[in-house]
Amino acid sequence: MVLRLYTVVIDAADPRGLARWWAEALGWQILHDGAEEVVVAKDDDSYPALIFVPVGEPKIVKNRVHLDLAPDDRDREVSRLEAMGARRVDVGQGPQSTWVVLADPEGNEFCVLSSRDGGL
Amino acid sequence: MVLRLYTVVIDAADPRGLARWWAEALGWQILHDGAEEVVVAKDDDSYPALIFVPVGEPKIVKNRVHLDLAPDDRDREVSRLEAMGARRVDVGQGPQSTWVVLADPEGNEFCVLSSRDGGL
Repeated sequence: MVLRLYTVVIDAADPRGLARWWAEALGWQILHDGAEEVVVAKDDDSYPALIFVPVGEPKIVKNRVHLDLAPDDRDREVSRLEAMGARRVDVGQGPQSTWVVLADPEGNEFCVLSSRDGGL
Repeated sequence: MVLRLYTVVIDAADPRGLARWWAEALGWQILHDGAEEVVVAKDDDSYPALIFVPVGEPKIVKNRVHLDLAPDDRDREVSRLEAMGARRVDVGQGPQSTWVVLADPEGNEFCVLSSRDGGL
């Protein structure tokens, strides 16, 4: 058997706008920009990519699948993302959590983890 | 800035069971098995991992974030996953789609894409 984790697909009201937001957030590139999907990846050879696809239905509940991002400097990255339009959300993480929960411009929750050298 | 895509986090009613299911689906390993989270990854050095975390609330709508998997042989992999308990779901993909939409045992939708050499 060969079954590879290839892409993380994110439903979007505005795939093009959300793809650009995430490309800027991660320092990744737009590899394909089409009406059916917009592909964002680190480079041509890196998997998984993020793919943004158009959907008609709005987001109504907390996502059951979300991304965790590892920063070199958590607070600096959170400030940068907030300046880009991310907002802090409370999903019950509590005041002692070492990570920060944010939502992207379409409300998709994600976490910025504790600081670590090189983001590793 | 350094902000790395580190993990894909999946809410689960039974994190341990769902983690084992995905490890078998992908041929990955359980790297950490705790009450707070169960970590599944290809190996110690591969990112992103999948992390399964316990939540109380049930799944009630189609996930807005899902995984696409690339197989070497789509139909063989779909049959294998169905034998493991995956079921086919209709999310409006239409009869002409080159991919197959499945749901894992907790109903999380994912796609098995068209066949490609080595899953690449």
